[in-house]
Amino acid sequence: MKMVTNQTLVTHLLKMSLKHSELEVEEQRPIPEPGPNEVLIQMHSVGICGSDVHYWQRGRIGDFVVKKPMVLGHEAAGRVVKVGSEVKHLKEGDRVAVEPGVPREMDEFFKSGNYNLSPTIFFCATPPDDGNLCRYYKHSANFCYKLPDNVTYEEGALIEPLSVGIHACRRAGVTLGSSILICGAGPIGLVCLLVGQAMGASQVVMTDLSPDRLAMGKELGADHCLTVKREDGPEELARRVEGLLGAQPHVTIECTGVESSVQTAIYSTRPGGVVVLVGLGAPMTTVPLLSAAVREVDIRGVFRYRNTWPMAISMLASKKVNVAPLVTHRFPLEQAVQAFETTRQGLGVKVMLKCDKTDQNP
Amino acid sequence: MKMVTNQTLVTHLLKMSLKHSELEVEEQRPIPEPGPNEVLIQMHSVGICGSDVHYWQRGRIGDFVVKKPMVLGHEAAGRVVKVGSEVKHLKEGDRVAVEPGVPREMDEFFKSGNYNLSPTIFFCATPPDDGNLCRYYKHSANFCYKLPDNVTYEEGALIEPLSVGIHACRRAGVTLGSSILICGAGPIGLVCLLVGQAMGASQVVMTDLSPDRLAMGKELGADHCLTVKREDGPEELARRVEGLLGAQPHVTIECTGVESSVQTAIYSTRPGGVVVLVGLGAPMTTVPLLSAAVREVDIRGVFRYRNTWPMAISMLASKKVNVAPLVTHRFPLEQAVQAFETTRQGLGVKVMLKCDKTDQNP
Amino acid sequence: MKMVTNQTLVTHLLKMSLKHSELEVEEQRPIPEPGPNEVLIQMHSVGICGSDVHYWQRGRIGDFVVKKPMVLGHEAAGRVVKVGSEVKHLKEGDRVAVEPGVPREMDEFFKSGNYNLSPTIFFCATPPDDGNLCRYYKHSANFCYKLPDNVTYEEGALIEPLSVGIHACRRAGVTLGSSILICGAGPIGLVCLLVGQAMGASQVVMTDLSPDRLAMGKELGADHCLTVKREDGPEELARRVEGLLGAQPHVTIECTGVESSVQTAIYSTRPGGVVVLVGLGAPMTTVPLLSAAVREVDIRGVFRYRNTWPMAISMLASKKVNVAPLVTHRFPLEQAVQAFETTRQGLGVKVMLKCDKTDQNP
Amino acid sequence: MKMVTNQTLVTHLLKMSLKHSELEVEEQRPIPEPGPNEVLIQMHSVGICGSDVHYWQRGRIGDFVVKKPMVLGHEAAGRVVKVGSEVKHLKEGDRVAVEPGVPREMDEFFKSGNYNLSPTIFFCATPPDDGNLCRYYKHSANFCYKLPDNVTYEEGALIEPLSVGIHACRRAGVTLGSSILICGAGPIGLVCLLVGQAMGASQVVMTDLSPDRLAMGKELGADHCLTVKREDGPEELARRVEGLLGAQPHVTIECTGVESSVQTAIYSTRPGGVVVLVGLGAPMTTVPLLSAAVREVDIRGVFRYRNTWPMAISMLASKKVNVAPLVTHRFPLEQAVQAFETTRQGLGVKVMLKCDKTDQNP
Repeated sequence: MKMVTNQTLVTHLLKMSLKHSELEVEEQRPIPEPGPNEVLIQMHSVGICGSDVHYWQRGRIGDFVVKKPMVLGHEAAGRVVKVGSEVKHLKEGDRVAVEPGVPREMDEFFKSGNYNLSPTIFFCATPPDDGNLCRYYKHSANFCYKLPDNVTYEEGALIEPLSVGIHACRRAGVTLGSSILICGAGPIGLVCLLVGQAMGASQVVMTDLSPDRLAMGKELGADHCLTVKREDGPEELARRVEGLLGAQPHVTIECTGVESSVQTAIYSTRPGGVVVLVGLGAPMTTVPLLSAAVREVDIRGVFRYRNTWPMAISMLASKKVNVAPLVTHRFPLEQAVQAFETTRQGLGVKVMLKCDKTDQNP
Repeated sequence: MKMVTNQTLVTHLLKMSLKHSELEVEEQRPIPEPGPNEVLIQMHSVGICGSDVHYWQRGRIGDFVVKKPMVLGHEAAGRVVKVGSEVKHLKEGDRVAVEPGVPREMDEFFKSGNYNLSPTIFFCATPPDDGNLCRYYKHSANFCYKLPDNVTYEEGALIEPLSVGIHACRRAGVTLGSSILICGAGPIGLVCLLVGQAMGASQVVMTDLSPDRLAMGKELGADHCLTVKREDGPEELARRVEGLLGAQPHVTIECTGVESSVQTAIYSTRPGGVVVLVGLGAPMTTVPLLSAAVREVDIRGVFRYRNTWPMAISMLASKKVNVAPLVTHRFPLEQAVQAFETTRQGLGVKVMLKCDKTDQNP
Repeated sequence: MKMVTNQTLVTHLLKMSLKHSELEVEEQRPIPEPGPNEVLIQMHSVGICGSDVHYWQRGRIGDFVVKKPMVLGHEAAGRVVKVGSEVKHLKEGDRVAVEPGVPREMDEFFKSGNYNLSPTIFFCATPPDDGNLCRYYKHSANFCYKLPDNVTYEEGALIEPLSVGIHACRRAGVTLGSSILICGAGPIGLVCLLVGQAMGASQVVMTDLSPDRLAMGKELGADHCLTVKREDGPEELARRVEGLLGAQPHVTIECTGVESSVQTAIYSTRPGGVVVLVGLGAPMTTVPLLSAAVREVDIRGVFRYRNTWPMAISMLASKKVNVAPLVTHRFPLEQAVQAFETTRQGLGVKVMLKCDKTDQNP
Repeated sequence: MKMVTNQTLVTHLLKMSLKHSELEVEEQRPIPEPGPNEVLIQMHSVGICGSDVHYWQRGRIGDFVVKKPMVLGHEAAGRVVKVGSEVKHLKEGDRVAVEPGVPREMDEFFKSGNYNLSPTIFFCATPPDDGNLCRYYKHSANFCYKLPDNVTYEEGALIEPLSVGIHACRRAGVTLGSSILICGAGPIGLVCLLVGQAMGASQVVMTDLSPDRLAMGKELGADHCLTVKREDGPEELARRVEGLLGAQPHVTIECTGVESSVQTAIYSTRPGGVVVLVGLGAPMTTVPLLSAAVREVDIRGVFRYRNTWPMAISMLASKKVNVAPLVTHRFPLEQAVQAFETTRQGLGVKVMLKCDKTDQNP
């Protein structure tokens, strides 16, 4: 691994080299010039996502393969420093959160409001598209959202993982009185917990292999936490979940991608309920599809999110959702390698990289 | 008005005489015998609803006309004292909340889950059906719901108005990040506020003629309260609402039934949004239907509620919704007339009648 | 197998003995007496379903195990000959179609309109409940639907399989302009075709191993028919389907239950689309769940149907759907064994048993 | 009125002067140059809409006021003659149908699939935006849809009114077995009839003042036609509709905008049903809102349409919907005034202007 200590003032980015497990932490690139519908952003806070670590370590996720060096990072907020000629809703100095997916074509998916499904979408740090873990970054102004004064940059950056929770809970049909099983108490499980509560869930059970991760779930308000073991049978776990809730959950949000956990999710869910698949597993999975089918338990996936930033900002501004406790570690951009190592080792919940040398506040 | 001071131990009911504005506060009736699918309930707490007062004062609501003396009351909870032969899910001693509407026919509405729309439905204290403001009352066991130990009888009785709020917010499509305008800060406006918040609303504006009523809204967490005057123009009010929220509300819940308020509701609501009509007004109403139509603002009514008791109990048991502050007055059943007068004069929010002489606790 | 040639006049039923593969074709039972909410029906036409044959041959379907002799048959129509005391909407002489599932409890599923999911539901010819392949049969009047004069008994009996198609297409969200892939051209695949067309599908592709079955699909209006081979790869088949339609289908209705066909269904369906599982396969199935999840292809099962008879009758009465061509064989009840053999051998599409000796017309 | 007989070869447009009731039928403008995402179209067939006539006669519709001369026409199809540099899905020679509304901003409405509600949308022949009743016209390529060989230009132009029917029926929730009341048998009522049938309606009743217009409805398959008189009472008409259908309709599509007809629509509709407002009336309307509210009859408007062209093309290509009979008159563009007069007098159903001198075929 190549370590660079002198940072340039101009650009600094965390780049994935093609030789996996290598992070090249500095490369000078010219500050980009925003197009007519773009803004240039001085990055402030960028969270590290499991997928960033995955690309670093493995160089691919499913069909997305890193074929040339790629800048990582897609959970980001910063300050507008330059505004394209056609941009009307933003101005220099605005603090913004960045939605990393920008549809390139006005296809059937985009026109019908499902732009996340557009096959040609640009997405930060999904190969071959560069991410925004750098000093200066330009982005479509239409996918930058102004933050109110009472929402911090870090909260702005956390809108990205929060959006996964929003989209998952929305796809699950969480509503007043829903009981929810969340499999996996990592960052995504935790945002699903926060969003589920905010949408009216009456009871949430979380499961995880790690009691430490469940402790954070408990702290954030999970009604029940169930530590599971690898050898636990899915049907037995389903019975334990039912026991804790007094009835099968209306909704299960599966955040691990592990086959046995998907099986547990299906067995656990109430007839007429929904299993949402958030965690990504192997291409082929063996599941009790018959049990799901005859009980009309729907199985729905989520691909990222759509139309979530405005509502997330509303919730953060009105203090109806509190994401601040999720940030457990902070590193200046210069210590990016250490930050990635921290995430790789599963320490804490969310690691933030601070990209603005003059302001390392939340 | 005929006042009766000696109460019988057997039955006591609040009966509306045909000469309106007269309440006959005592009539002896035999304790009813529950049928195979019914339970007999010793009533504990019964809330007074505006409609009870309306029937008392006017003898009719729309096409529902009181033609013979009728027992009032439909916001009720009590204790099961006798169980029909076919009843399996309840037993003597169970504390229950009573859903006052019981479909009589298995018609298309019932089969499709919309039993509240069944034209032949039984409904407590809607003529000609008697209500449950009495000592002993029998009801379909399928529409009595067991209360957990940590939910009080009064909370159980308040599930009825809470259900109006649930059904209204559900019909409105309130979800995460919704901004809501609630017209009217009476008991129904307040339960809509509580439910809207629990379903994820980011901001709620309440309007009322009375600053006193709005004060309670503020206390329960309304983000903005707007005291209106009779002479305020609907379009002007819509602009003020937009000003308070920074944008037009996604949803407006109209709880007054007043024509100008319905107009305000329509003008206020965002394109693609929803106006829910909860307040009942005159048979014919003059409204800016064109403005609603070309902006695709949907207008939806609510007729009572359906499928709300289980989720309401979940929310109360998990302390996600707090209805206790709504009860501002309590009277023993013997002082029913005084209790009705209190409601008629619009004092406080919710008046509770305590029907169990041996237990007048919440 | 025990063959009985003399039929009684009183009752005749097709009974499954516990020694599988044996059909006892006659047993005398007294004509049942309808309860207050029931009607007694002189059966006219009863279709044979694959599940009837399955119970006959295997004695079980999933967790439903035949433990005592059971009358088969659940696709039925007949004439009311006696009416219970409480029944208002039917009278002697009415020709009716029988919905075989009757919920026994007013549970959360029934109250919310999903009575098919009620775990205690009665269902004709699902053990331990007897079916209606007999001369006289009593049934809940609420689940008997009067047939208009221009709808035949056989059309009335066919409402049962048609309902599977309705529920499948409804769960699939078929609407104007939908393109549909139907896997399997048996009776259920064919009713899905008929319903899909009636709900506005623009194009339907059918697949089957048998060109003969596909020929019937073609005759009923399928736009494309694709004969598949057991060795065809699911991804390759998905490409061929896309080629035929010019784009991936919005909806896939899987009617075979075969693992590779479920895989084809998932690969074929457009992002944001729906796979409906109608065919029932093995308890555990290996499927490309990842492909479904990241493309937000929903997987939804159907358990029978709910709220379909009234709309089916409307469609048949107005001649918007024509099910008559599905009936390819007719046998008098006395030749029940021969009829069951015909179905077992997969001859034709739908075999009808004629239970009324005095009227063997459609 | 200024009549021009000599047509230029370059451009010819039907322009509305500010002095209403004047049509200036010729003005030379340079052939426009398509931008990078636009195409230049040689117009072939353009239908005349009631709104075109309304602007001509009155100079305004609601808040849309003609303040400078405006080219009319928005029901159009033609042939691509020049393609912008960024356009990929179209090429010179492609025959296309034109969706007249093009969102200008990527606002919340556009992102969520409701681009028709975007307040800054461009729309052909809605002031101040010019329409496409001319020889050459440029348009956003993303809102031009290639026509298959078996769909004529005129069918392509008719997609615009058909889209109103699609959006109305979709908003109404028309589905298998729906019974529909359509108030008004003009062009829009007729397309609602065609679409309603294609989406699975079992029965359609049409009403109109004119038996002639109803005759076309009958011809296109309406099950019942009811000639109404101005003096008929709305509640009486509702009873007659119920009598014709045997039950209240699930859905009413109001296409007249007349107050008494909106009242009839509300009274007629079944509890839990939907009234869709397609016809535009006066800004304030007096309606039985109470009757709608307590029966949960939803009132929904439509503003044009969204995401309808692709499905309309599928339906036309597969011959599932036949719009050809709607065209009752054709005029060459040179006789535009005569064509407008024909529409103004309510003769026939749809009048087509043929803009291509070398091809006046359908």
